[in-house]
Amino acid sequence: MKKEMFEHEISLLRDTFRRLLNRKANINLLKLVEKTHPADLAVIYRFFTDFEQDYLFKLMDDTAYGAEFLSELDESILEDLLEEVSPERLVPIIREASSDDQKTILDALPDEKAQAIIDSLHVDEQEEIEEMLAYPEDSAGSMMSRDVFTLSEELTAGEAIKDLQNQEGAEMVFYLYVTNNQNQLVGVISLRDLATTKSSTKLNAMMIKNVQYVRAETDQEEVAKIVSRYNLLAVPVVDSNDEILGIVTVDDVVDVIREEATEDFLQMAGAGKDREILMKSSWGNAKSRLPWLFASWIGGVVAISIIGYFETMLQSIVVLAAFIPVIIGMGGNIGTQSSTIIVRGLATGRIDLGSDLKLILKELSVGLILGSLYGLLLGILAFFFFKEEAPAMFGIVVGLSICASMVLATSIGTVVPLLLRKLEIDPAIATGPFVTTTIDILGVGIYFLIASALLPL
Amino acid sequence: MKKEMFEHEISLLRDTFRRLLNRKANINLLKLVEKTHPADLAVIYRFFTDFEQDYLFKLMDDTAYGAEFLSELDESILEDLLEEVSPERLVPIIREASSDDQKTILDALPDEKAQAIIDSLHVDEQEEIEEMLAYPEDSAGSMMSRDVFTLSEELTAGEAIKDLQNQEGAEMVFYLYVTNNQNQLVGVISLRDLATTKSSTKLNAMMIKNVQYVRAETDQEEVAKIVSRYNLLAVPVVDSNDEILGIVTVDDVVDVIREEATEDFLQMAGAGKDREILMKSSWGNAKSRLPWLFASWIGGVVAISIIGYFETMLQSIVVLAAFIPVIIGMGGNIGTQSSTIIVRGLATGRIDLGSDLKLILKELSVGLILGSLYGLLLGILAFFFFKEEAPAMFGIVVGLSICASMVLATSIGTVVPLLLRKLEIDPAIATGPFVTTTIDILGVGIYFLIASALLPL
Repeated sequence: MKKEMFEHEISLLRDTFRRLLNRKANINLLKLVEKTHPADLAVIYRFFTDFEQDYLFKLMDDTAYGAEFLSELDESILEDLLEEVSPERLVPIIREASSDDQKTILDALPDEKAQAIIDSLHVDEQEEIEEMLAYPEDSAGSMMSRDVFTLSEELTAGEAIKDLQNQEGAEMVFYLYVTNNQNQLVGVISLRDLATTKSSTKLNAMMIKNVQYVRAETDQEEVAKIVSRYNLLAVPVVDSNDEILGIVTVDDVVDVIREEATEDFLQMAGAGKDREILMKSSWGNAKSRLPWLFASWIGGVVAISIIGYFETMLQSIVVLAAFIPVIIGMGGNIGTQSSTIIVRGLATGRIDLGSDLKLILKELSVGLILGSLYGLLLGILAFFFFKEEAPAMFGIVVGLSICASMVLATSIGTVVPLLLRKLEIDPAIATGPFVTTTIDILGVGIYFLIASALLPL
Repeated sequence: MKKEMFEHEISLLRDTFRRLLNRKANINLLKLVEKTHPADLAVIYRFFTDFEQDYLFKLMDDTAYGAEFLSELDESILEDLLEEVSPERLVPIIREASSDDQKTILDALPDEKAQAIIDSLHVDEQEEIEEMLAYPEDSAGSMMSRDVFTLSEELTAGEAIKDLQNQEGAEMVFYLYVTNNQNQLVGVISLRDLATTKSSTKLNAMMIKNVQYVRAETDQEEVAKIVSRYNLLAVPVVDSNDEILGIVTVDDVVDVIREEATEDFLQMAGAGKDREILMKSSWGNAKSRLPWLFASWIGGVVAISIIGYFETMLQSIVVLAAFIPVIIGMGGNIGTQSSTIIVRGLATGRIDLGSDLKLILKELSVGLILGSLYGLLLGILAFFFFKEEAPAMFGIVVGLSICASMVLATSIGTVVPLLLRKLEIDPAIATGPFVTTTIDILGVGIYFLIASALLPL
């Protein structure tokens, strides 16, 4: 019996593969591949050289294993690997793959090569694949499996069980979808209910009529929400005529949830949205992070001109400069808290029904509570420590500025993602750098405005 | 047939409930509850007043519905709601609930009340529940369902199907687990394989022997990794003697993945780890965000003393102050990018096999690339714009400082989460505020050190 595959065991396995690869011990390699789960091999592939990757894949002769293995690989590795592989080698693998895996593999190929493979399939296979490739990326249509098993509502439970036993294609039967004579989805039955009901009962008398479904063009995030909210194992995809096109299964939904969370994390930090950023070269990595840093660079330049504008005041009260980091730092941190809470609330659907205004007011009052507290703390400190060097009002200037910067930060942190969502832009896009940069500018501006209003020059 | 439950429909449903609640139209309310999925009702509960919540729950009379509904509620709502409910009302619900839902409900009750409920159960039910409550929180044992269906390896396929048809308890049969005569888990069979194999075949001749499993004490994040890596619908939980204790099903794993991502988001931003922070009052919300802001406050005070130390230099070259925000801002942003990439890489397991040193060097070189670029950009700007007010070396001071602050930021952003993981602390804990605050201090320090080394006073 196989033990849990913790990191330690994966790394042992990787070392064994490496040793055999160095010795080109092909027979042993094949045996080891056979014993290794395709998903584990896909993880180990991350740590192979290009040569090792190509060598081992050339060796694999089991097309079913090959199809599953390829679909588990990281996109960037898959693309590299397939560059070296001939279309002829891939045709049987594509044939063997489930329809969502077919899409993964074909998408990783250059257009010509993908077309060459499609051309060498049967006409009906071609049509299916081309239809699937036409669905928008990240839609239910592009992630569904077409291998779905339906039963007519006129059948009895006994007939349905016989039908099921003769099926070969549908690899994962979770629910049995029931259709009427126009082929429209009208109900669902679990395998267990089918097996435990009297065999003469008609399906339409025992089926659940309240079926959750999605459309082919429904976004994958929406699909994930439905599957996870209703604890489903699969959700059927139907066309505008309610005819069933395929199913999205929960294992693909699990991947979507992970991937969307990773994209949100990276986007919020302004690090692009490429989930595989860790696999890029330093240059590639730097390139995806560069643009958002440029935004923060621009913000910095604006801050420079604001402070430059108040140069004379700074000249007479130099300690003003010392409080710049704390004022923008506190604002940046509380603003990031707000935007993180809102972005995540939007992603998990917790915010969907609440009124935006209520949310903003609540964050504002959090900003006011914490801003007053930390403003007071810092104002007192400023007053006592810089008694000699600064005017008496200096403590009040600092306290007010901290408080104002934190209140502003919470509102910006809240409003920005809400606004992005209204504009139908992903609310996670670079909210982090955007919020902190805005706070840098506004915090500095407010600080010097308050100072010039309250301090004698 | 039910349409996809998008936000719009949920909010319609909420309004209908509200209207009926205002009129105390109990019969219509009950009918509406019956038509509403428990998961949807749990979402709608977020927007009800305490009175509405209590009133509607008192009305519900279907214990099966009640059990599922309670297990779908947010923790904070569940706790509030159960305060008003008598143990007598809960006993039948607990009896009806699946074992993981039992735990959710009992955990939300004050100890006495939970004990009162447990005491009024049968002795064997009591033992089961107490055993389950004893598992550590967030472990496989605490989230598993005990309703698992096993078959002896000596049975034939035909006998197994008969056995299955007589089963009532196991609500979700995904895989059929096969045990030997010592009750140890030895294999697994899918329902489909069972149905499509000759009925005289023995189970041990057709079962898959390579079973993925977890231990009762395995952390839920690890369970989620295994289920998602191997695309499982359920994973069996076994004791040290390989006897099967229960199963964790994929729908619970989906919840774990979402929840862990939310916790990581909040922790990284230093906003605590309470997933339900949006449901807290402004005070409660402020309280969980206060501590990490205090850390950044301390950092600000340190920055104040550093800048204060260089007061004389600032006095003679006031424009130095104008560049403080951009130097710490650029550092903070690139550092946040690094820590986000690393924290997420650790959470998704992408980093597990790589060497830490390689990661650090790579991030360092990204810092060097981007630091040189932005340092150059800002150095040139500083040189040309402040020709009159600052010494000629000023551009070089600014350029070097930006570059140094960004390189430092990438290494801190990388090292901190890696180090936390080594210390077996959650790498997401407040990495955001910690990294930006450290950069505030170090960035300012480096800037003034470089300035005092290169600029004539």
